[in-house]
Amino acid sequence: MKNKAITSRTEDFARWYDDVVRAAKLATYSGVKGCVILEPNGYAIWENIQKTLDGMFKETGHQNVNMPVFIPESLLMKEAEHVEGFAPEVAWITHGGHNELEERLCFRPTSETLFSEYYANTVKSHRDLPKLYNQWVNVCRWEKETRPFLRSREFLWQEGHTIHETAKEAEEETLRMLMVYKKFFEEYLAIPAIVGQKTEKEKFAGAEYTYTIEALMYNGVSLQSGTSHYFGQKFSKPFNITFSNKNNELEYVYQTSWGVSTRMIGGLIMVHSDDNGLVLPPKIAPRQVAIVPIKMEENVMAKAEEILAKLSAAGITAFIDRSDKSPGFKFAEHETNGIPVRIEIGPKDMEANQLTVARRDTREKMVISLDEDIVKYVQDLMENIQNNLFEAAKKRRDELTFTATNMEEFEKIMRTQPGFVKAMWCGDEDCELKIKEIRGTKSRCIPFEEEQEHISDTCVCCGKPAKTMVVWGIQY
Amino acid sequence: MKNKAITSRTEDFARWYDDVVRAAKLATYSGVKGCVILEPNGYAIWENIQKTLDGMFKETGHQNVNMPVFIPESLLMKEAEHVEGFAPEVAWITHGGHNELEERLCFRPTSETLFSEYYANTVKSHRDLPKLYNQWVNVCRWEKETRPFLRSREFLWQEGHTIHETAKEAEEETLRMLMVYKKFFEEYLAIPAIVGQKTEKEKFAGAEYTYTIEALMYNGVSLQSGTSHYFGQKFSKPFNITFSNKNNELEYVYQTSWGVSTRMIGGLIMVHSDDNGLVLPPKIAPRQVAIVPIKMEENVMAKAEEILAKLSAAGITAFIDRSDKSPGFKFAEHETNGIPVRIEIGPKDMEANQLTVARRDTREKMVISLDEDIVKYVQDLMENIQNNLFEAAKKRRDELTFTATNMEEFEKIMRTQPGFVKAMWCGDEDCELKIKEIRGTKSRCIPFEEEQEHISDTCVCCGKPAKTMVVWGIQY
Repeated sequence: MKNKAITSRTEDFARWYDDVVRAAKLATYSGVKGCVILEPNGYAIWENIQKTLDGMFKETGHQNVNMPVFIPESLLMKEAEHVEGFAPEVAWITHGGHNELEERLCFRPTSETLFSEYYANTVKSHRDLPKLYNQWVNVCRWEKETRPFLRSREFLWQEGHTIHETAKEAEEETLRMLMVYKKFFEEYLAIPAIVGQKTEKEKFAGAEYTYTIEALMYNGVSLQSGTSHYFGQKFSKPFNITFSNKNNELEYVYQTSWGVSTRMIGGLIMVHSDDNGLVLPPKIAPRQVAIVPIKMEENVMAKAEEILAKLSAAGITAFIDRSDKSPGFKFAEHETNGIPVRIEIGPKDMEANQLTVARRDTREKMVISLDEDIVKYVQDLMENIQNNLFEAAKKRRDELTFTATNMEEFEKIMRTQPGFVKAMWCGDEDCELKIKEIRGTKSRCIPFEEEQEHISDTCVCCGKPAKTMVVWGIQY
Repeated sequence: MKNKAITSRTEDFARWYDDVVRAAKLATYSGVKGCVILEPNGYAIWENIQKTLDGMFKETGHQNVNMPVFIPESLLMKEAEHVEGFAPEVAWITHGGHNELEERLCFRPTSETLFSEYYANTVKSHRDLPKLYNQWVNVCRWEKETRPFLRSREFLWQEGHTIHETAKEAEEETLRMLMVYKKFFEEYLAIPAIVGQKTEKEKFAGAEYTYTIEALMYNGVSLQSGTSHYFGQKFSKPFNITFSNKNNELEYVYQTSWGVSTRMIGGLIMVHSDDNGLVLPPKIAPRQVAIVPIKMEENVMAKAEEILAKLSAAGITAFIDRSDKSPGFKFAEHETNGIPVRIEIGPKDMEANQLTVARRDTREKMVISLDEDIVKYVQDLMENIQNNLFEAAKKRRDELTFTATNMEEFEKIMRTQPGFVKAMWCGDEDCELKIKEIRGTKSRCIPFEEEQEHISDTCVCCGKPAKTMVVWGIQY
């Protein structure tokens, strides 16, 4: 039985996405142009993401802070490439109350400039280093299009900002945090991730280089899902962030930043969900188990309560659906909302000493004995679902990962069934621009050495000798 | 030994406050005018506050959401009293990128208008009610003065927003959440709180009435620490938030909102801290126990590790200070930072089979045997500190709570040692304005019936028959 409120994923992916977001009550368009309201089911996923990632940041020695949301225009202007990259898409505050401001302020699109000013005022000696900060905040980029979780003028994210004594330490940090993201994507979001370096053209405005984590959606479109930037001394020089090193010489610090956003929720939806609505990996699902009593009879409810107590005691997030809707309606609702496991129990089950367990990912139903250890059963099942979702996503990604050695092959892939395309590149930006003419295809990343493959000797575009393999894709 | 970086509290309270904020590295002024940077030690307190309060909100059935940060001018204008109250202090966004906006947007000073629009679009039937929402966000009010945690143009808070079928339910919610705040203040922040209703003059712009939670600082100045508003149908009518009730008639919803902010951290400082720096109640301290090895010798470190493991296993947040500073320096630093309990252990202690425990609140030191159950000892001590801080704050507040029956008495109190003044009031705003002439004294609240006292028959100001007792105070 297909959910009629949801367009088929194969028929119209964009409408399917909007339908899932609406049907699972994750988010809704707001009356404020370009802005989105995160509804309880959507925000709860963000809370779980925050809790897990925040723990990982703290384990790696980072501390949370909170910088101002406003950046004076003169501060934003201090690093030339940075301002050039961001000025076209910032929102400007020009009035406070009834008065015009002497200097206009932008709503932070990112906070390198604010952290840099703070570092310059507080860091003096190598003993003050490293500084390993993070903040969970809202940022604003004046986008034209709006799609919940993928693109909106205001969005929620975390931005890590660190400074170090040496280039080596800062470069290690840049890589470390990329790998934290990769671990989080694979182990929690069950999304296989490609990591690597952005090309010069695609790197962050103001960075020496940018690492990126790229995921492939069900429809073969890529999603840039997180980035980690190495700044070297590109901010520390104009902002004059100096420290006296171990030889008592004044030196500029080495800097990084890294971030992921609510966009990851868009990725979760487009990788795992189906025509029946949301599918969530158990490790990130706000509610893991729905217990549905088929009839609200005393012995059924007592059993439901007993199961709830056992699951809760084991740290599983479960609830009993006591609403007066029909069981069929409840089943559909919990499927739409992506609750990984459903337990059904009714008077007949009680007589037969059994209950039914339904898993959301495959929609299989299993009948098990009431004598079975339900906690262990659910724990094993959730582990199985978590792994199954990852494997299915990986299989899909591998099926949609192609190679091309010339532009004809390249274009044919992108015009029929797009995906990741591995192809060689000469290193010239002109070739990137030419490839972009194919449905906006961009270089996703230059994979690290161990992931490099030799697809051909020559650049897929110009035919000159190739320097490296690049993964290309159409992007959100 | 007094901390020399901190001005004496009795000598200059304002400087003492700034010194404690700086010395304990809680927050610092930012280069962005009117804005403050929350540093790791300060933000960690906010994280603990959030975690605890968020749990209390969820226990009372609330769900977190996230509304846009922008409010179009026309939306803000919909409720007349509300816009009149907030328009003078909002920040206006007028440009996005290089383009002027067709309609300017304000940075939310509070979000009643955004929630109201959302309710109007989503609520249809009494089955959709109640809606019990909360959000943890930044807001902006264009203040002239700046003081960390007390007053800044941007600050962090939570705002609860709910709608209900009946006035009775909404009024119960307004009171319920005030009482949640009171419980949190008394049991976690160890701050005794007076609750009651704001006068018409002091209520929230757009509310039918406002409940408030008021605390008294060490210097006798009051701090409005949280508010809970009953709106009745004052927003639901202009925003057209209707639902079909059980008789299938269209009706306007009844609405509430309630909020507390990082201002509570200012309260924590000004109620508990002393000339040696920050003092934190154990239940809200990000780090509860500092273990200081007097010498980094093997058997000392092994014992420190053993104690750390035991405390951590019991859910106590402890750490070993392994830095190469001198023990005396470490003691002073942990005192300044307000860590409730310090454990000192050195080679001589090991020989004598003992260790030293220091409590931050009274600065007492206790020598205890290594055979003692350290976990139980620390748990009992922290409970003792928590209670002691509450009792000391309550004693101080009671000492600084006065009564006045005429303006001469009233003025004398406020000009010598201010505090809470209980005095009768006729209900006339003119008397409030007259009382305000005494160092800006305002009505803090009209306490609930059970806290009412009969101080005199007549209004403290005009001498006409009194209607009610009011608690008055000078405010931050």
